[in-house]
Amino acid sequence: MLTVYGMKSSGNCYKVQLLLEQLGRPYRWVEVDSAAGQTRTAGYLALNPNGKVPLLEVEPGRCLAESNAILCYLAEGSPLLPQDSWLRAQALQWLFFEQYSHEPYIAVARFICRWLGPDDARRAELPRLRERGAQALAVMEQHLARQPFFAGETYTVADIALFAYTHAAADGGFDLAVYPQVLHWLERVRAQPGFVVQQT
Amino acid sequence: MLTVYGMKSSGNCYKVQLLLEQLGRPYRWVEVDSAAGQTRTAGYLALNPNGKVPLLEVEPGRCLAESNAILCYLAEGSPLLPQDSWLRAQALQWLFFEQYSHEPYIAVARFICRWLGPDDARRAELPRLRERGAQALAVMEQHLARQPFFAGETYTVADIALFAYTHAAADGGFDLAVYPQVLHWLERVRAQPGFVVQQT
Repeated sequence: MLTVYGMKSSGNCYKVQLLLEQLGRPYRWVEVDSAAGQTRTAGYLALNPNGKVPLLEVEPGRCLAESNAILCYLAEGSPLLPQDSWLRAQALQWLFFEQYSHEPYIAVARFICRWLGPDDARRAELPRLRERGAQALAVMEQHLARQPFFAGETYTVADIALFAYTHAAADGGFDLAVYPQVLHWLERVRAQPGFVVQQT
Repeated sequence: MLTVYGMKSSGNCYKVQLLLEQLGRPYRWVEVDSAAGQTRTAGYLALNPNGKVPLLEVEPGRCLAESNAILCYLAEGSPLLPQDSWLRAQALQWLFFEQYSHEPYIAVARFICRWLGPDDARRAELPRLRERGAQALAVMEQHLARQPFFAGETYTVADIALFAYTHAAADGGFDLAVYPQVLHWLERVRAQPGFVVQQT
């Protein structure tokens, strides 16, 4: 039985939940509250020395970190990870785009707006986060004007990864109404078999 | 013939150069100076809407972005990308670790120290960048105490990706002497067939 160490409010963890539901794979979910320091305990650091969620335990002590690596590992052999080498490369391109050019702005803006107080000093980061996040959304909008999904004609792990924080971007102050292709794509993702909403 | 759009001083671009040299694949290198705005021209944005280097052009107009996606695409079928699903997952884990928990601190500290002036306002970011970068190096040190390379017993694209900015970490003010396992691993990477130094 697979075990996922995750936090339901985290988009990175939701990616893994959504994929497992769509694959119909049974799993055990262990809720880990990183805000309460539960990813920095000695016990958790023994499982993941980088102290982050999500973490996939495939058997006791055999763990895989990094949400997008977990997506690729679990989706291998399913239509959600392309077999074609060029389409697979496209999926990986968007997975790295998500972690480098999207999540650090859109997820962090959401975190500041939803979980920090109105006087928190980190609110000073919001203008830069929104500028960079808007650039990522514009790149997505341009791509989706040409293709229905990120790695071609069908839904893949690249869509799962980008859906995780894009669907909640309004939490961080982004107005998705100016990205109509992104809004249509969000609906295409929600229409996929086995789709589940994030429980936050 | 493969074309790489890259900037020699960029570690992300050096990854692609190093892999191509080690694979013995012929390629054409087009130097693109992002500091001079050459990644933001209409012509370049038509190739890579995200406006970054490196970019791999496999045939005219058919492009792949994101350094670590390029590594996986080019290394497919070679020993540098494991066939075993668990080892491949480990390689991907470290590729995502590199882009999320390592490069944004170690590469950015290097950029600020090497290319910005002594009075530049961005120097205020250095204490936080060095704290987070040190965390990444400590995670690497711990891993390398147990395994010679990042995805197991042999050299893979994960080592190439992590070498790119780790070998130059001193440029950003990191003292690698406190990470002896990392120093030994850097030497193991330098001893690989086809290794080339970064031309900066």
